[in-house]
Amino acid sequence: MGSNRRMDHMTWPEFKEARNRPVIVPIGSTEQHGQHLPIGTDAILAGHVAEDLAERIDGTVLPTLSYGYKSKPLSGGGPLFPGTIDMNGVTVIDQMHDVLSELIADGFTKIVVMNAHFENEAFIVEAIDLVTRETGGVATIVETNWWDPLPQDVVDKVFDGLVFPGWALEHAAVTETSLMLHYAPELVHMDRAVEEAGASAKSYVRYPVRQGDVPAHGGLANPAGSSAERGRLIADACVDEVARVCAAEFGD
Amino acid sequence: MGSNRRMDHMTWPEFKEARNRPVIVPIGSTEQHGQHLPIGTDAILAGHVAEDLAERIDGTVLPTLSYGYKSKPLSGGGPLFPGTIDMNGVTVIDQMHDVLSELIADGFTKIVVMNAHFENEAFIVEAIDLVTRETGGVATIVETNWWDPLPQDVVDKVFDGLVFPGWALEHAAVTETSLMLHYAPELVHMDRAVEEAGASAKSYVRYPVRQGDVPAHGGLANPAGSSAERGRLIADACVDEVARVCAAEFGD
Amino acid sequence: MGSNRRMDHMTWPEFKEARNRPVIVPIGSTEQHGQHLPIGTDAILAGHVAEDLAERIDGTVLPTLSYGYKSKPLSGGGPLFPGTIDMNGVTVIDQMHDVLSELIADGFTKIVVMNAHFENEAFIVEAIDLVTRETGGVATIVETNWWDPLPQDVVDKVFDGLVFPGWALEHAAVTETSLMLHYAPELVHMDRAVEEAGASAKSYVRYPVRQGDVPAHGGLANPAGSSAERGRLIADACVDEVARVCAAEFGD
Amino acid sequence: MGSNRRMDHMTWPEFKEARNRPVIVPIGSTEQHGQHLPIGTDAILAGHVAEDLAERIDGTVLPTLSYGYKSKPLSGGGPLFPGTIDMNGVTVIDQMHDVLSELIADGFTKIVVMNAHFENEAFIVEAIDLVTRETGGVATIVETNWWDPLPQDVVDKVFDGLVFPGWALEHAAVTETSLMLHYAPELVHMDRAVEEAGASAKSYVRYPVRQGDVPAHGGLANPAGSSAERGRLIADACVDEVARVCAAEFGD
Amino acid sequence: MGSNRRMDHMTWPEFKEARNRPVIVPIGSTEQHGQHLPIGTDAILAGHVAEDLAERIDGTVLPTLSYGYKSKPLSGGGPLFPGTIDMNGVTVIDQMHDVLSELIADGFTKIVVMNAHFENEAFIVEAIDLVTRETGGVATIVETNWWDPLPQDVVDKVFDGLVFPGWALEHAAVTETSLMLHYAPELVHMDRAVEEAGASAKSYVRYPVRQGDVPAHGGLANPAGSSAERGRLIADACVDEVARVCAAEFGD
Amino acid sequence: MGSNRRMDHMTWPEFKEARNRPVIVPIGSTEQHGQHLPIGTDAILAGHVAEDLAERIDGTVLPTLSYGYKSKPLSGGGPLFPGTIDMNGVTVIDQMHDVLSELIADGFTKIVVMNAHFENEAFIVEAIDLVTRETGGVATIVETNWWDPLPQDVVDKVFDGLVFPGWALEHAAVTETSLMLHYAPELVHMDRAVEEAGASAKSYVRYPVRQGDVPAHGGLANPAGSSAERGRLIADACVDEVARVCAAEFGD
Repeated sequence: MGSNRRMDHMTWPEFKEARNRPVIVPIGSTEQHGQHLPIGTDAILAGHVAEDLAERIDGTVLPTLSYGYKSKPLSGGGPLFPGTIDMNGVTVIDQMHDVLSELIADGFTKIVVMNAHFENEAFIVEAIDLVTRETGGVATIVETNWWDPLPQDVVDKVFDGLVFPGWALEHAAVTETSLMLHYAPELVHMDRAVEEAGASAKSYVRYPVRQGDVPAHGGLANPAGSSAERGRLIADACVDEVARVCAAEFGD
Repeated sequence: MGSNRRMDHMTWPEFKEARNRPVIVPIGSTEQHGQHLPIGTDAILAGHVAEDLAERIDGTVLPTLSYGYKSKPLSGGGPLFPGTIDMNGVTVIDQMHDVLSELIADGFTKIVVMNAHFENEAFIVEAIDLVTRETGGVATIVETNWWDPLPQDVVDKVFDGLVFPGWALEHAAVTETSLMLHYAPELVHMDRAVEEAGASAKSYVRYPVRQGDVPAHGGLANPAGSSAERGRLIADACVDEVARVCAAEFGD
Repeated sequence: MGSNRRMDHMTWPEFKEARNRPVIVPIGSTEQHGQHLPIGTDAILAGHVAEDLAERIDGTVLPTLSYGYKSKPLSGGGPLFPGTIDMNGVTVIDQMHDVLSELIADGFTKIVVMNAHFENEAFIVEAIDLVTRETGGVATIVETNWWDPLPQDVVDKVFDGLVFPGWALEHAAVTETSLMLHYAPELVHMDRAVEEAGASAKSYVRYPVRQGDVPAHGGLANPAGSSAERGRLIADACVDEVARVCAAEFGD
Repeated sequence: MGSNRRMDHMTWPEFKEARNRPVIVPIGSTEQHGQHLPIGTDAILAGHVAEDLAERIDGTVLPTLSYGYKSKPLSGGGPLFPGTIDMNGVTVIDQMHDVLSELIADGFTKIVVMNAHFENEAFIVEAIDLVTRETGGVATIVETNWWDPLPQDVVDKVFDGLVFPGWALEHAAVTETSLMLHYAPELVHMDRAVEEAGASAKSYVRYPVRQGDVPAHGGLANPAGSSAERGRLIADACVDEVARVCAAEFGD
Repeated sequence: MGSNRRMDHMTWPEFKEARNRPVIVPIGSTEQHGQHLPIGTDAILAGHVAEDLAERIDGTVLPTLSYGYKSKPLSGGGPLFPGTIDMNGVTVIDQMHDVLSELIADGFTKIVVMNAHFENEAFIVEAIDLVTRETGGVATIVETNWWDPLPQDVVDKVFDGLVFPGWALEHAAVTETSLMLHYAPELVHMDRAVEEAGASAKSYVRYPVRQGDVPAHGGLANPAGSSAERGRLIADACVDEVARVCAAEFGD
Repeated sequence: MGSNRRMDHMTWPEFKEARNRPVIVPIGSTEQHGQHLPIGTDAILAGHVAEDLAERIDGTVLPTLSYGYKSKPLSGGGPLFPGTIDMNGVTVIDQMHDVLSELIADGFTKIVVMNAHFENEAFIVEAIDLVTRETGGVATIVETNWWDPLPQDVVDKVFDGLVFPGWALEHAAVTETSLMLHYAPELVHMDRAVEEAGASAKSYVRYPVRQGDVPAHGGLANPAGSSAERGRLIADACVDEVARVCAAEFGD
């Protein structure tokens, strides 16, 4: 919060100075995260990871896009929980499109999109594709989810003594809870966490979504065992890895 | 920041409990605010006023929409300043549409949209109109800008000993600077403030926008004389007045 | 009507000849205008002022866009009056976009948009912005409402002996009625004019719009005292001022 | 012009009275019409035929939509002539959609769309289809082009002593010129008419359109022989026939 | 199926080789075709004619766009028949737009769009126009319906001994049935053909569409007399003529 | 081709009879598939699997949507290969939306979308969500990719003696090649197959896409070892599993 990497805390001449350095656009969601995590979890994590990354790569963080694409039952619990505020696909595309387009118009050419909401990705990438076509590819745009760059050994360490249910079901579960304990412990209510087995992945999608498609509490896997330390492991590994990607893709 | 009125800090069962009470959707912009105010000024102010209002009316504050409609030269300095990230009209309509639409689907019927960026208004209201048609008008939606409800005597008090240049030119000037000194003084750099006469309103719009249409520093009126105390006057009067509106429009 | 400035009355070779001179695009609305003014008031006024301006600046007038953006209760009475035909925001943007875009493709670079319906403005300007980006800013586009350029002393003279209720409430009131008495007296029914105090401005917008938000007769301020002479004052001052703007913006 | 059938000349209470009677929405174009006819020909004809029809069926005429879909070389000369102002398909759909939608919201259920520009039709009908779905088909909407209802014997009479080149090529030719001589002779310059054989129809469309695809003067068939009398024949037959259609479709 | 002209049967290096030769994009519909023809008739015919044309002009055939614009009662029976799957206008425009746009990006500059569904045409041509503007007209695009290029003497021969009802009513009638007997006789059920007089053309469109607007069996004209031989006549003449057009438009 | 499950081969009365039974909408892509598989691979596979499924569940197969969403480098090779015809996200949403919407209007309530192109999924599901909202959820819609339902033991059997590179890289590799050898061996050129290690998955997306992001031949993993027998295993297991899903989701 006190980061001096946040563009919204800078004056425009300060931001102008950052023109040749990377900028990071965090995007999350406004979505139920079970009984023990706040609705803003994805947006909060996107912002924090982005700030850590900015420290590492001398970058600047844009305001987080706090609303994302529609929650799906088996990756986010789905639309039936109050507090899950879903945007249409076109809206997600357009808001990312306009932000990227304006950054490029301002002369930025090293852009990272840091996503923290699984369901966003296809629509974010559509926006990146459209902007890239329109601007002739002058900017290099890297997009990643915070979980994608984690090396297997880090995942193993994070789940040491625990069972990894697969990324799709890691909703309000060990990784998100641990990251929140690391970044914003005051917003986590471990005493309310439902320590149950969670949902099972399915090989298909069925509409309409129904009550009962996922556990009524909203979590998709057991958060038991979450810790700030596991959260730190994830955050550090993600930042390390994305910093390496940026070095490779943005050149010196 | 520590407000317990923020929906993004709540769990979904907590938010569900708030269903019969008002919700407030703050919307700002990402726009240059002269030499002494941060780019996030509008978004920061929208969020703070919304939180104060939430305290008063027992409401809940949604995550701020941090990006808004295109900055105009004579109300926000225009598009040529780095850091001014402009969204297309359709994007502004759609993002507000989706948020309102989901709130209503979750059963909320008392909604306030608190706007802090002049240029947003027509597009916000278009979204409200579309959602109202689609949902048969089940929700009462109040939209206001923080400056609109201020009674004349408050404006007079705020500008006591100063000259009021009109609301359009109040960009990075006395009212915004005072509000920032009240809400987020650590982000204000009064030592960099350019104390000049500012821009003059024009009776027409001309495109393309050109360098020189507004002062190069980005402010449209003189911020000299800004103070946290004047900011508090504005904030309190705005909240008082909107609370009165809510009482009248939302019934008991 | 008999003006030889109207593009729709010209053959294409005549219009082609006008390529280096200004063109004026009038836009109005189809909206209730109280008991004594016709529904076409805004479109009729836009066209007449545009023709007068064309005479002054050696310009050409395009066909009036007769349908505009949604009427708002406190500037036009709102959507509940029969005869108020509201276009969606996107439609208003697109129709203006296409007209401007085609004019520029035909080689015109001095364009005035003359608006007579308050609610249109944000959407017109969005269209101008989009076209300007797409065409690299080759054309200079001036947009104004007929009331915006009026100097204060003219407003004072127009309201000599009367009370000026503010521009938003000047709907079917002294200025519009006087302009209609000046330009199209045969369409004005002064005997049916409701001479009441009118509506009061509000500091916020509330949806859904309800019967009773504005006076049932449709006027927002008292038209008593309207006269062709006052209308002529307005028309002349508007044309004078916009001609001055054109001289400045379009060069020699 | 002096017609008391024009909605834009009515007050809203007058228009409200017309709610159970037919309304007519004229749509034309802004398109080159050769050397001797004005650019507004289609819009002018749409309006006049609509007013005549209104007289016959006790209907009301809405303001003409003066801009239409893109001119095609072999029905209107194509986009390369200055003065041809083409709207995109989506814009034509949306403007008609919004007008119809608002009429139905105002309680009108007997609607005629009178088209005078060949290229508009598919997009008009798309709008009608969309509005009909959205409103559950409560309104009966009849759409026609002024030439479609003409009985063969009338066409024969109109072309008595002349050669009928087919409707597509009847651009700025005998029928349009005659109708203009009937309705607005002061806008017709017969002395400039190019009396040449005109263009030939083609069995395909080719893009890009090129100079030379059609005669450089802009006419597609020979207007020689046009007369106000032939125009009156067309107008009367069209009105007769559409009145018969309305009687059948709208019931009493 | 056995054609080696089909792009979907080629590998990409084979397709790349075809870059300087013509490509053909067939588009049909999914629409009722009476009691005796399959729902896929238009798509099947578009594909077959395209393959024959490809053989003649050394071209390549893209996958058929199998879904088209909304069926109209008097050209395709209309929307009330099960099996008629109608696309919105915007969808038809966009799918054609994207295909053409990608072909041009791949370096193809000689493109034929072969249409077999009357209602598609305006929307196809809108797509062609948009792509042509966006790409600066680098590709020559020819669009035709299979019936448009037929010389009058061929039509006469095809209808030798029969009555030609006009192209609009040629739905599930002699020409389509004959073409299907020529190309895909196994899908034709002549024993179920309803040999009735059919529908009559109308001079206007009326919405909503109603049961009874067309014959309940779905055919618009009498298919009696259809034969593979007549089908071959049509196919050959169409291919001959379009090949001639391609030679003229695509240069050597 | 000979299947009597294909809707495009049925007459409309036959299709109407199928109203209470499941319908299957296959969607593929038009995308490079290396040196040995045809560009139509995804569309061909979608259609064949759909027909097999239709046999099993007494269903009907709609015409395949042959064009899909943009190919990504690490799941389909990306946009730089000739023959990869990419649709924009909105187009993919709209075409699926319209098809589903019309099926539901025709009374079908048991719908399967069978996808064969990884990149399509998010956009297909957006369409399903939109249609479900618009129609109040009257139809049950199941969406799956052919690879998703395969049980682990089947995957193991399919890759017996081979290395499974992960589904994303299974492009033009063992599973697609085997399925093509099973369904359409005449279109497979094993002699041209490039038996190399293939591409590696990446933890992020980078734009612009560049030559060299993937192997120049277009395959992402080694197709060596592909066989019709392995293809049959996949096809059978997919159909078995989806049939089970349909039984569960569609009720009796």
